[in-house]
Amino acid sequence: MSRLISQLAETAEKVNQFIDEVVGLESEPTLLYQAARHIIDAGGKRLRPYLVLKSCRLVGGREEDAVPTAAALELLHTFTLIHDDIIDEDEKRRGLPTVHIEWGMPTAIVTGDLLFAKVYEAITKFTDSRRVSPRRILQVLKNVSEATVTICEGQILDMLFERKETVSEDQYFRMIRAKTAALFEASARCGGILGGAKKREVERLGRYGHYAGTGFQVIDDVLGLTADEKALGKPVGSDIREGKRTLIIVHALKHASESQRKKILETLGNRSASPEQIQEVVGLVGSLGSISYAEEKAKKYIEKSKKALASFPASEDREDLISLADLVFARKY
Amino acid sequence: MSRLISQLAETAEKVNQFIDEVVGLESEPTLLYQAARHIIDAGGKRLRPYLVLKSCRLVGGREEDAVPTAAALELLHTFTLIHDDIIDEDEKRRGLPTVHIEWGMPTAIVTGDLLFAKVYEAITKFTDSRRVSPRRILQVLKNVSEATVTICEGQILDMLFERKETVSEDQYFRMIRAKTAALFEASARCGGILGGAKKREVERLGRYGHYAGTGFQVIDDVLGLTADEKALGKPVGSDIREGKRTLIIVHALKHASESQRKKILETLGNRSASPEQIQEVVGLVGSLGSISYAEEKAKKYIEKSKKALASFPASEDREDLISLADLVFARKY
Repeated sequence: MSRLISQLAETAEKVNQFIDEVVGLESEPTLLYQAARHIIDAGGKRLRPYLVLKSCRLVGGREEDAVPTAAALELLHTFTLIHDDIIDEDEKRRGLPTVHIEWGMPTAIVTGDLLFAKVYEAITKFTDSRRVSPRRILQVLKNVSEATVTICEGQILDMLFERKETVSEDQYFRMIRAKTAALFEASARCGGILGGAKKREVERLGRYGHYAGTGFQVIDDVLGLTADEKALGKPVGSDIREGKRTLIIVHALKHASESQRKKILETLGNRSASPEQIQEVVGLVGSLGSISYAEEKAKKYIEKSKKALASFPASEDREDLISLADLVFARKY
Repeated sequence: MSRLISQLAETAEKVNQFIDEVVGLESEPTLLYQAARHIIDAGGKRLRPYLVLKSCRLVGGREEDAVPTAAALELLHTFTLIHDDIIDEDEKRRGLPTVHIEWGMPTAIVTGDLLFAKVYEAITKFTDSRRVSPRRILQVLKNVSEATVTICEGQILDMLFERKETVSEDQYFRMIRAKTAALFEASARCGGILGGAKKREVERLGRYGHYAGTGFQVIDDVLGLTADEKALGKPVGSDIREGKRTLIIVHALKHASESQRKKILETLGNRSASPEQIQEVVGLVGSLGSISYAEEKAKKYIEKSKKALASFPASEDREDLISLADLVFARKY
């Protein structure tokens, strides 16, 4: 795992350097570019860029050909975070005030839009078309835009579910496949495409990313209730206050007695729920086995993601992608 | 002019048909796709698509090769309108409630994001790379993303100016070049690129679009104060209520006496200004010559835009682009 940690740090350095060029802190209007860098500079594990770079290497490509796309997918991720934070009225992210809290909602909207535009600028302007054929670059762009369409669809489902009486496990998985897994899938696929993978290999990488992303989101749901608040960078239990239908809540509501169900629904979506009320719900869903149920589900997805790599010949890069899947499960924030 | 009107209608038909495929009203989640189609289906002149198609033809290209990009630029325009309406708190657009009024702000944010993603999906998925080389498609994508970055920068300037004591004419033009002219410029450039134009021709088309777009925005400022409310599709004087620094306001504040200046600033940015107060300011800026000043300025930009076409050989398509520039000036809404 320590090899992975140091590799993630290396990826972060490469990607951050590239982002410095594309989203320069000194660019004008400075207000806009400062807002654009706020969440990027506040940290983040750079998992999606790592997926891009490693997938490219796994199929025999040159890592440097994938750096613009790796960075672009981090920008895409950041753009969705900024808009999501407005929508969810979240006030903290990575331990800092969110963009709309710091600069106001109008600026936060435009900042997200700017980063989204920079996604395409980064890929079209900086991917060397003498080394990667324009046809492959177009394939990458197609994957990125389709993934973003899917993310928007997932975001709407997430919002709709908050107002729904009952959300089934199937509906939950449909939503997170769109909202979270699609971008992990696109990251692995794009890395493969840039590295010159065959169509079948791109599919396999996509499956790996998709399952890892699904597991990632389920673990995210768990950590949102159980993690240390400082490591989490935002209040524990935000999901509950916002009425999110996480796998834990979906499972708990299904298995709760009438009075337990009432208790959960009282706090779910109550923006002013106290930490004590949140802890009560956490205790309750824990006693219903919903947290360990989610952990088991996540574990299964992580296993599936590793299995998708089985037909690639053994290599250091394959091992690294397997370690990444394990980290997704084992992470503490 | 009647030839142009019927051609714009033809363009609208082609573009709308294509949009039907890319942003299907029946797609799911239906709420999202209905919101996405709301402003598109409410009308609009399809000026930007027309620019794309005509520029493509002017340099000898096939119009049908440019249809996906023409439609994409209308989607891009619509995305910016939806987000701008949230930011400006506008309640009407094209005679209908704006997206955030009808579906709420969170859905409106995601709807704009979806349309932006669809811009790239349309171009990458539907531009036939057997007919247009991938290298040219990449050029188009590069122009589109750079224009969008510029639009975001312009949007922030527009917002910053609302809070500024004094905005100079130079600053005003810098803002509208970014916010409005950049997309007209990109439209003409992309049409040229898709049609196989030489680099020099692309530059000229870009200049044409840039000046026409600058003239367009200045006329927009004028119409915002003088047009018929029904044709305008939103309240007359919204710019004044929102504190926008239009060319008219910039000119008027510069030439007003101290008491006139006070009068204007009292109403400027006052969201609850009455129609009478608005009319008083319109009368005042009219008497200061600010409206006719803006009209003259617009006229000059339109002349410049037509001049940029002078070195293209005479053709029907060139005449059509010249008519379009004239329409931009002569339009009543």
